[in-house]
Amino acid sequence: MSKTQAFLEAHGLALPIVQAPMAGSNGATLAAAVSGAGGMGSLPCAMLSAEKIREEIAAIRAATGNPFNVNFFTHAEPVPDESAQARWRESLRPYYEEMGLDPNALSNAPGRRPFDADACTLMEELRPPVVSFHFGLPDADLLRRLRAVGIRIWGCATTVAEARWLAGRGVDAVIAQGAEAGGHRGIFLTDDPVRDASSQVGTLALVPQVVDAVGEIPVIAAGGIGDGRGVLAAMVLGAAAAQVGTAFLVTPEAATSAVHREALKTATDDGTALTNLLSGRPARGLINRVMAERGPISRDAPAFPTAGSALAPLKARAEAEGRADFSSIWSGQAASLAVAEPAADVTRRLWSEAEALRGKFF
Amino acid sequence: MSKTQAFLEAHGLALPIVQAPMAGSNGATLAAAVSGAGGMGSLPCAMLSAEKIREEIAAIRAATGNPFNVNFFTHAEPVPDESAQARWRESLRPYYEEMGLDPNALSNAPGRRPFDADACTLMEELRPPVVSFHFGLPDADLLRRLRAVGIRIWGCATTVAEARWLAGRGVDAVIAQGAEAGGHRGIFLTDDPVRDASSQVGTLALVPQVVDAVGEIPVIAAGGIGDGRGVLAAMVLGAAAAQVGTAFLVTPEAATSAVHREALKTATDDGTALTNLLSGRPARGLINRVMAERGPISRDAPAFPTAGSALAPLKARAEAEGRADFSSIWSGQAASLAVAEPAADVTRRLWSEAEALRGKFF
Repeated sequence: MSKTQAFLEAHGLALPIVQAPMAGSNGATLAAAVSGAGGMGSLPCAMLSAEKIREEIAAIRAATGNPFNVNFFTHAEPVPDESAQARWRESLRPYYEEMGLDPNALSNAPGRRPFDADACTLMEELRPPVVSFHFGLPDADLLRRLRAVGIRIWGCATTVAEARWLAGRGVDAVIAQGAEAGGHRGIFLTDDPVRDASSQVGTLALVPQVVDAVGEIPVIAAGGIGDGRGVLAAMVLGAAAAQVGTAFLVTPEAATSAVHREALKTATDDGTALTNLLSGRPARGLINRVMAERGPISRDAPAFPTAGSALAPLKARAEAEGRADFSSIWSGQAASLAVAEPAADVTRRLWSEAEALRGKFF
Repeated sequence: MSKTQAFLEAHGLALPIVQAPMAGSNGATLAAAVSGAGGMGSLPCAMLSAEKIREEIAAIRAATGNPFNVNFFTHAEPVPDESAQARWRESLRPYYEEMGLDPNALSNAPGRRPFDADACTLMEELRPPVVSFHFGLPDADLLRRLRAVGIRIWGCATTVAEARWLAGRGVDAVIAQGAEAGGHRGIFLTDDPVRDASSQVGTLALVPQVVDAVGEIPVIAAGGIGDGRGVLAAMVLGAAAAQVGTAFLVTPEAATSAVHREALKTATDDGTALTNLLSGRPARGLINRVMAERGPISRDAPAFPTAGSALAPLKARAEAEGRADFSSIWSGQAASLAVAEPAADVTRRLWSEAEALRGKFF
């Protein structure tokens, strides 16, 4: 456990449990609960304004003096492509007609802003202990500015090659995101939006290969970890800590939508797929109507993050009727292990189960 | 480790390492080496005649008195579909032309015979300690006949639902085959040949959910286990034993082809995909030319196991030139962890690494 001990000491944590940032389903309340319990709470900022980020970080700090993580996306903003949008919207016309909606009405799906100089300035001011990035890293000068004020940098890898790339840029930890993970795949060394889903590497195979590739840099295992068995297995594979998402989606502190919570109650191990229909990038979620009917991956989906706009009116109408037909009901493959209890309890239980298993097993 | 201990005692094994049966790449030599070292060697019989099965089992018994496993497929033989074959062959015509081969020449890809009454009679005579099945189980009366002569039955599950199905039929162990595993997915509760690849459940998520579902039945974890870290992680997740395939493909005792061995030397974590092009059923292998050019999954591939026939002449010609363009170069996602050393050494090392890690870690 020396890797874990070193990781905890370096980050001022009590427990090697990282709450995965879940844009759209998690704000300060969840992050503060996890950090307050001694784990690493995470605030996803991709869908937040600067003002909202400031408020949320203040809320975390008001709730706990413990360390927390602030997460940003680093995708390139797509060139507007009206014809791709028009084709996509046209392909969805039957759904609009079925639901009596105007396919030409403007929609307002929330965007996702990539990390930029303004966000960097905000981080320099607010100085969260850790900033983590999804889809690669920002430019070297932005990284230098963050480091200059003492912020630790975490990056996310879905392959050994991505882990090496991150290690070469001096990250303080590599999140090894196995294929079981819910939400957006962190893929960044390919720009093929429909890269074959079956080439995504499972957590049990990915973690030891990443550990071997990155030397002394601590690895945080993610994907399919739903209870203490997964946490301890991650450490046996060489990880210093475990990142958990879906297990926190069902906590009262999460901002998970009603249809999302309802879907998670009956989630099965094989009930998810990777889809690019809902945002433009592959993400793992419970299979909803549009994924089932269109197939979860399509070359017709416009570039991330714009694919969601044309679905937004359909999503809103279906959700009003209690259906997740067009919703992002992100989930990993171990949702059935999740227990609806307070996030602090989940944080402590994940580790106490791992500790108990360690004692019993060995 | 009480589950492991009980499993070892029940099966007369010294080490909780199961060599995955690998039809086409493994015969008695590999099985005997693994069994001789105290693990569970496996003889894949799907591509063998009755006479060859008899010879191979005799060879194992001549080499070791230790227990071994005999593996069969239990797919339904497809109704011959000449038009599907003709369409498939026609779609491959450009390859035939490029290579100067006659697309209308008859080809002779090896078939795969499902387990049947004749095979059952042979097993009643030969009485291997364990018979394992892929793609479900044979009919209840055949299972009864095997059990009546003291043969233990193992089944393979890719989902919790499949594990429950096997448990309900009284198997002696469930192999939980995670998505990382090389070779054919054991899928049997769906007959969709192109069931979405990304719904396949990773080992780290699958094993604990299967363990919870099957009660007292021992679970053998498979998929992405390449060294002692994976072996110990499997047990932490609740498995009684670990099944390993790719790590044995590179041993001298395996019957792995030259192009296959060569490809494994440079295998990367993300270099595989699930494909149905090569046999008609989804199987994980290193991405070769036809998978890359056609996409690894196609509704045009004829039913298992007939898809390989039209590829056989292309495969033979390419392999003669040292290329695996049309070959089944099956591999799991942890091939980079494999070490080319004798199979007995691999068997012992997998466990000694796990034991050393246990001692160091805890």
